[in-house]
Amino acid sequence: MHNYKMILQYEGTRYQGWQRQDTTNNTIQGKLEDILKKMTGTSVKIHGSGRTDAGVHAKAQVANFHLEEAYEPYKLMDYLNQYLPEDIRVIELEEVPERFHSRLIAKEKIYTYRIDQSKVADVFLRRYSYHIDQKLDLEEMKKAANQLLGTHDFKAFCSNRRMKKSTIRTIYQISIEQEGSILKLTYRGNGFLYHMVRLLTGTLLEVGLGKRSASSIPSIIESRERENAGTLAPAQGLILEQVIY
Amino acid sequence: MHNYKMILQYEGTRYQGWQRQDTTNNTIQGKLEDILKKMTGTSVKIHGSGRTDAGVHAKAQVANFHLEEAYEPYKLMDYLNQYLPEDIRVIELEEVPERFHSRLIAKEKIYTYRIDQSKVADVFLRRYSYHIDQKLDLEEMKKAANQLLGTHDFKAFCSNRRMKKSTIRTIYQISIEQEGSILKLTYRGNGFLYHMVRLLTGTLLEVGLGKRSASSIPSIIESRERENAGTLAPAQGLILEQVIY
Repeated sequence: MHNYKMILQYEGTRYQGWQRQDTTNNTIQGKLEDILKKMTGTSVKIHGSGRTDAGVHAKAQVANFHLEEAYEPYKLMDYLNQYLPEDIRVIELEEVPERFHSRLIAKEKIYTYRIDQSKVADVFLRRYSYHIDQKLDLEEMKKAANQLLGTHDFKAFCSNRRMKKSTIRTIYQISIEQEGSILKLTYRGNGFLYHMVRLLTGTLLEVGLGKRSASSIPSIIESRERENAGTLAPAQGLILEQVIY
Repeated sequence: MHNYKMILQYEGTRYQGWQRQDTTNNTIQGKLEDILKKMTGTSVKIHGSGRTDAGVHAKAQVANFHLEEAYEPYKLMDYLNQYLPEDIRVIELEEVPERFHSRLIAKEKIYTYRIDQSKVADVFLRRYSYHIDQKLDLEEMKKAANQLLGTHDFKAFCSNRRMKKSTIRTIYQISIEQEGSILKLTYRGNGFLYHMVRLLTGTLLEVGLGKRSASSIPSIIESRERENAGTLAPAQGLILEQVIY
């Protein structure tokens, strides 16, 4: 068996997320698996580094899959790009050792969330940002972000209430930077729960808008109750930037 | 009469260009005029600083129009944005003196053209760039760009062969900058002919690809023959950045 690792870029706007579903053919994983099935004549299972929700984008999602036969990586990449829609691209592909598994051995993930602070929503950024023209208190948001760093049980920031596995995660860094009219939040951690980045962002935005204080963060974490966290920030502002192994 | 000046942002992808046409309702000017007609009950003519072709974008197109009645500028702007599709936005609107005319008194225009030099076309830039993965000789392109500067008869760089008005224009600056995988060409001039920026870009790209030399530029200009210039670069890479008064 040959193990192939690929790096994928996609605009999530048109898709029902990463994960293949029985009820829709409109997922990133589904599109990729369908092409590999056509190519090989057998079902091929693609392992993503993690699921991205409907509408979420990726600049460098990582996935791997096994094929019986050996293929030239660049030919495999060209074949996939030929049949993929133009909003999904394989930007790198290589054969890797058998032990490589895109999800199980991932060490860190980096996500960004973009908030468009223009007076009128920017036409060119509308698909990749969440438009809020109210002024945000960045200092208070940074204080709140600092309260989130480290290893915690983030159950309050997980939309899956029946999550059976551990909800303990480590956040290494949350940076909040103004780039022109865009406020960019960058999250780096060892993994993120279902909806976690969007719930963290929704909570930080409520801090920025003065609806919560930075000092309220530890009690939200401690409560382990989803209803104590902020609202879910919209999917289109979120981009999976990098997976580190 | 009240004269209103507005600054517009649009993604040209879905439109048949700026200028209203009898055969299609799908133009930027048409969309704007239809809304103002609905609002006022009479036909309103919008004057753009210039036409942009089908598929060309604008970060700050300028246009003006006259209304019998006085309106609060912010209300007018909100009304337009409420009924405009989300890929066209009015980002500024103000009342200006009667003598202001967006086209007749424009002094300079700045256009950019983006070339995506990624190995695989970037998903997030695909609507706003032209993908060429071949290596380009930037030094030779810069030499060629220098030959284009100044006041010349640019008839060779105009797709309208029956142009009756003057084809003399002045180009003040052409800069060629690498920004990550994007090669950005910036054109600043006192005005541009039909297809001129795209023909200049097509010609510069042929220089970059080694199909022409920088020293061939003066003879193309002198010939005043469209067929001596390069191919027309695709619309989607072009953005009207600024109009200076």
